[in-house]
Amino acid sequence: MSTPEFVDVEGPMFVADPFDVEEPQVHAAWLPPEAFRSLGARRVLVHGDGPLVDTVLDEVARACARYGGRMWHSPSWDVDVDLVLTLRRADALPSSTAQAARAAGEAALIDDGRTLGDEGFLLARAGDVTVVLADAPAGLLYGLFHVVRLCAAAFDPARPPELHRPALRRRMLNHWDNVAVHPVMGQVERGYAGGSIFWRDGRPRGDLARLRAYGRLLAASGINAISVNNVNVARAEARLLTDRLGDVAEIADVLRLYGIRVHLSVTFAAPVALGGLSTADPADEAVRAWWAATTRAVYERIPDFGGYVVKADSEGQPGPFTYGRDHADGANLLAEALAPHGGVVHWRAFVYDHHQDWRDRSTDRARAAYDHFTPLDGRFRTNVVLQVKFGPVDFQVREPVSPVLAALPATRVAVEFQVTQEYTGQQRHICHLGPWWSEVLRFAPWGPGGRTIADVATGEKGEGGGLVAVANTGDDPFWTGHPLAQANLYTFGRLAWDPRLDPRAVLDEWMTLTFPPSATADPELVRRTLHEIMDDSWRTYERYTAPLGVGFMVHPGDHYGPDVDGYEYSRWGTYHFADRDGVGVDRSRASGTGFAGQYPPYWADVYESPERCPDELLLFFHHVSYTHVLHSGSTVIQHIYDTHFAGVEEVEAMRRRWQTLNGMIDPAVYVRVAERLDEQVRSAIEWRDQINTYFLRKSGVPDAHGRRIY
Amino acid sequence: MSTPEFVDVEGPMFVADPFDVEEPQVHAAWLPPEAFRSLGARRVLVHGDGPLVDTVLDEVARACARYGGRMWHSPSWDVDVDLVLTLRRADALPSSTAQAARAAGEAALIDDGRTLGDEGFLLARAGDVTVVLADAPAGLLYGLFHVVRLCAAAFDPARPPELHRPALRRRMLNHWDNVAVHPVMGQVERGYAGGSIFWRDGRPRGDLARLRAYGRLLAASGINAISVNNVNVARAEARLLTDRLGDVAEIADVLRLYGIRVHLSVTFAAPVALGGLSTADPADEAVRAWWAATTRAVYERIPDFGGYVVKADSEGQPGPFTYGRDHADGANLLAEALAPHGGVVHWRAFVYDHHQDWRDRSTDRARAAYDHFTPLDGRFRTNVVLQVKFGPVDFQVREPVSPVLAALPATRVAVEFQVTQEYTGQQRHICHLGPWWSEVLRFAPWGPGGRTIADVATGEKGEGGGLVAVANTGDDPFWTGHPLAQANLYTFGRLAWDPRLDPRAVLDEWMTLTFPPSATADPELVRRTLHEIMDDSWRTYERYTAPLGVGFMVHPGDHYGPDVDGYEYSRWGTYHFADRDGVGVDRSRASGTGFAGQYPPYWADVYESPERCPDELLLFFHHVSYTHVLHSGSTVIQHIYDTHFAGVEEVEAMRRRWQTLNGMIDPAVYVRVAERLDEQVRSAIEWRDQINTYFLRKSGVPDAHGRRIY
Repeated sequence: MSTPEFVDVEGPMFVADPFDVEEPQVHAAWLPPEAFRSLGARRVLVHGDGPLVDTVLDEVARACARYGGRMWHSPSWDVDVDLVLTLRRADALPSSTAQAARAAGEAALIDDGRTLGDEGFLLARAGDVTVVLADAPAGLLYGLFHVVRLCAAAFDPARPPELHRPALRRRMLNHWDNVAVHPVMGQVERGYAGGSIFWRDGRPRGDLARLRAYGRLLAASGINAISVNNVNVARAEARLLTDRLGDVAEIADVLRLYGIRVHLSVTFAAPVALGGLSTADPADEAVRAWWAATTRAVYERIPDFGGYVVKADSEGQPGPFTYGRDHADGANLLAEALAPHGGVVHWRAFVYDHHQDWRDRSTDRARAAYDHFTPLDGRFRTNVVLQVKFGPVDFQVREPVSPVLAALPATRVAVEFQVTQEYTGQQRHICHLGPWWSEVLRFAPWGPGGRTIADVATGEKGEGGGLVAVANTGDDPFWTGHPLAQANLYTFGRLAWDPRLDPRAVLDEWMTLTFPPSATADPELVRRTLHEIMDDSWRTYERYTAPLGVGFMVHPGDHYGPDVDGYEYSRWGTYHFADRDGVGVDRSRASGTGFAGQYPPYWADVYESPERCPDELLLFFHHVSYTHVLHSGSTVIQHIYDTHFAGVEEVEAMRRRWQTLNGMIDPAVYVRVAERLDEQVRSAIEWRDQINTYFLRKSGVPDAHGRRIY
Repeated sequence: MSTPEFVDVEGPMFVADPFDVEEPQVHAAWLPPEAFRSLGARRVLVHGDGPLVDTVLDEVARACARYGGRMWHSPSWDVDVDLVLTLRRADALPSSTAQAARAAGEAALIDDGRTLGDEGFLLARAGDVTVVLADAPAGLLYGLFHVVRLCAAAFDPARPPELHRPALRRRMLNHWDNVAVHPVMGQVERGYAGGSIFWRDGRPRGDLARLRAYGRLLAASGINAISVNNVNVARAEARLLTDRLGDVAEIADVLRLYGIRVHLSVTFAAPVALGGLSTADPADEAVRAWWAATTRAVYERIPDFGGYVVKADSEGQPGPFTYGRDHADGANLLAEALAPHGGVVHWRAFVYDHHQDWRDRSTDRARAAYDHFTPLDGRFRTNVVLQVKFGPVDFQVREPVSPVLAALPATRVAVEFQVTQEYTGQQRHICHLGPWWSEVLRFAPWGPGGRTIADVATGEKGEGGGLVAVANTGDDPFWTGHPLAQANLYTFGRLAWDPRLDPRAVLDEWMTLTFPPSATADPELVRRTLHEIMDDSWRTYERYTAPLGVGFMVHPGDHYGPDVDGYEYSRWGTYHFADRDGVGVDRSRASGTGFAGQYPPYWADVYESPERCPDELLLFFHHVSYTHVLHSGSTVIQHIYDTHFAGVEEVEAMRRRWQTLNGMIDPAVYVRVAERLDEQVRSAIEWRDQINTYFLRKSGVPDAHGRRIY
């Protein structure tokens, strides 16, 4: 065997892309060379064949070349090694070391009584050797990245065997990337990290090295599926399904090397727009035939194609309503075409009236998805995944968990998160979302102790719809605009692999990988400081923005910065109804929109009651007076003032803490984060002053502490 | 002599452009063929030579060809005619009729004791002949259009002699047309009538026939100057001054035929951006030389070029502040270059801090122009015209008259109006602005009975800066989007010719021309109905939008539709400070920003006092409680409710009245106006409900009449 040659031209924390030395350098994120130090200094035996095993070989060879270790691939002689990465069913395993390792692994596995599956792996010690055993090449790759995460701990003689299998079969990113630059939304809709990794000005971006580096990062976080174009499908994007399929295949060819399957967002109107038919009616035979033939052609070109993502009859996108059909008819049409090839359709449940009259207090956007979809439960084909935003409105910093997630027992349901920070600071603000997602995943919609949202996404027999998130990545040198926003992407992948993970522990993993000891002056100080900055940053963001779950109050259109009445008289169904006496939306059954009644009884009762409703969701469910006393003991109005003053103080503390890292970490990271913290402080002050001023002017209640409000 | 041939292919009210039968038809506006019926049926003698006389000949020949009259041009034999149009100093006047006519004219003129000037004309009867006498060809053209306006009355034997000379030397339109489409502002900034008449997608539009038709309409209204590009000068527009000067010359060549001089908006940074200099400092010799040479080149190409329009150090445009110079230094730099050629620089006074902090109540945008410019009075060269928006803020439906207009006695001051309806319904709403402009022009800033704003624009010796307006025209088939918005353009031209005209009489003129008897079933009914719809439409618009002079409350960015808090926490300096107790901006000297003190004593005292301040400006000058009682006897809050309910009722009445015209006028006009009235009703309801709801929620004061507020 030969060790591949690599050109490693790098500055601190930056790795030149090994596939194209001409490319501008990009940040290594959670896979800097130093993360491979422990692995790369050792003797490693890899056993198995196939493209994904080649990827493992590449990774190990690069690490060994850098750090003085050595790698063998399926050798015919015995060698002394420290680590074996092997497929359980691999033929010809002559090395006695490998045989001993496999025996140890098998023993551990037999003890466990389970199989490894397509992506699982087992890590066990056999004498002085650490063994990673997998049934399939993807498992070997995930096992490798696990060893990287563990660093020296992977070689701890006392380490007990560990079995790792993803809780969710599909751990998916949705890219809202446009092929052609949209006149309003730009290259990436709600993208805050530069252009697209896939597309530029109507054409493929063509940077396959960057694409490969992206796949590598995603695989190391656990993500195994990706849709490569916006769910709002315009003309150029629609054609990816047919005459521009080659552009998609090119992406799939690269991402396949990291076990990632490619999905496409398609327009429901494709038979008309692309096929020249006069209808896209699901009941029309020609339409069904068109989808069948088109889908067959996709699989001929991309055999492991994942499937379709569809936003239909939502915010102006076409859908089955045009033809008097419902969402089940629509989704099943596409599912039928995908079924022979093993593909799935992700059908988004984000359907509501986006031309609502603000005068009408009976219509409630929060109710819409439930009202649309629960009557359809049981009618979807098995390869339909109903993709449901985690909250009933739209990715706010605080919402209740969507009742839809608990309302379709006979449907495969996926939970949709938003890693891109549309409403949570747009990657100019530090807002680490791990704790929020974890809270959602641990939420038990049938009441405490019952099944959780994670269980719903997993499914009773592992056939749940999985976890999906809107990506926060782009062609920015730091991938995510804000360097610390990388942690959100990493955390999403890890929670999708195992929703029970402690988000703080995941953040710690990310920090250890991203800021490895050799690249920092004082790794412990860096880690402690980052925890101080990031751990509670989601709640800090909540404090200085819209209060008590009321949501929105953002600047219309771009959704950045405060505008308390920005959506109050709009058609979007997102209101707060603040008047001189009180604020909030009555969603009770008794006197409001009845949304609270969409939950199973336990939560329906809790949310129904202004007394029992959790403080942080009070204004989502109830219109209360400014002098209403919260569980915290504070009044609503004083809570608004206090949290907004506190939020700014916390951001100012973040900035001070970050400044203590100057000189300890990569200057490029330091400067970028420092600049964004300046903006975060400015913006937080703006939020504080506008929110406080708005409510002081409206309520007339002075701040109990006499602080400055305008 | 020969009568030119014309191709007249037309539907009712539409005239095919005679210069290009391939052009899409455009509406004839106030010059439909029927308007020339009275003239065209008569025998007309034209005497004089030159390009403008050729234009007169064209007009008369076309009219006679259509309506059976006959035209002679400087004949060598005596003819019996009904109308003579003649230059007083024309050589060789052998016709005895012409001689008699001239004698009559001279006699009348001598009685009057004045001269006619460059643009004036005299209309008098000599026996059975109507005589139009002018000193210069432009006067002959204006006299011709006067005869058209008068119709049969021009031939009334008992008509006494009339002398007409424009009160204002320069009657100017500013086009905010971009050459290249601006990514946000489009082809025409604040344009609501389609694309530009001059430009399309970075190039000249090239439709010289349309351009000529435009010049003809403008001349018939009295306008004699036009700037052809936006005051916000971007890259493509900047180059009109130098290497794209030919594009401007082409426009000038056409508009010259109607006595209209072309002006250019230029960027103060031109010496750097175009000239390659390292500075645009007015004190720099190379800069002065560059402007001198550049301007000389302009005049070589366009001998009657009007001059420059400059927006400097305003809303991000470059200006002299960069170099530590003031506006006088900047304006004089350009004036110096223009002076040898007789050109003027229009220097806009619209200068303010557009990055204001909403928390800061001491800074007042309304004060800014006065504070900037009054210290410079006397320092401007005589060919500088300081162009001042009529109000201190920005073309609102109601503002006080700008105190700047009364504060620079040693400066030539032009008053700037906005014919394009940026803040007055954007040509989707009927808002006839004649009464508003007339009110401004008649305002006596030094107190009742004193000199008026019209006097300021006229100047003590006719050397005032004139009247300027932002155009409302585009390539829309009706020129102005809303067909009835044509009346605003016509009225502006007429008031610029004579500010003492009664706007209602001008509107009547416009109606008579635009809806001539032969084109309507019942001309009197049409006229009466149009008066009912249009006469008070400005006040109607005021009623359903921002109340009592407080201004803004529009949707940010596009400025269409209500958004009460849209600018309340912004950087633009346009606030209302509504809280639960009251609303309005304290601009008094005693307790506010002191803006009221910028007026001469009479108005300073009136505006200073909440008791004496006119109701319609109360919230511009004072922050008062919702229960403050107006001169009208109503409270502020009840006034808000009442006017907003009334405004909608008036718009609904407008729509009903318009519907009575169905079948009586050109169907294309009928349908376009009907569609826009539907939108006006919808929008007025939205204004009513948002404004009323906003103030009910804030004040808690119920409507005395118990009407529905949300």
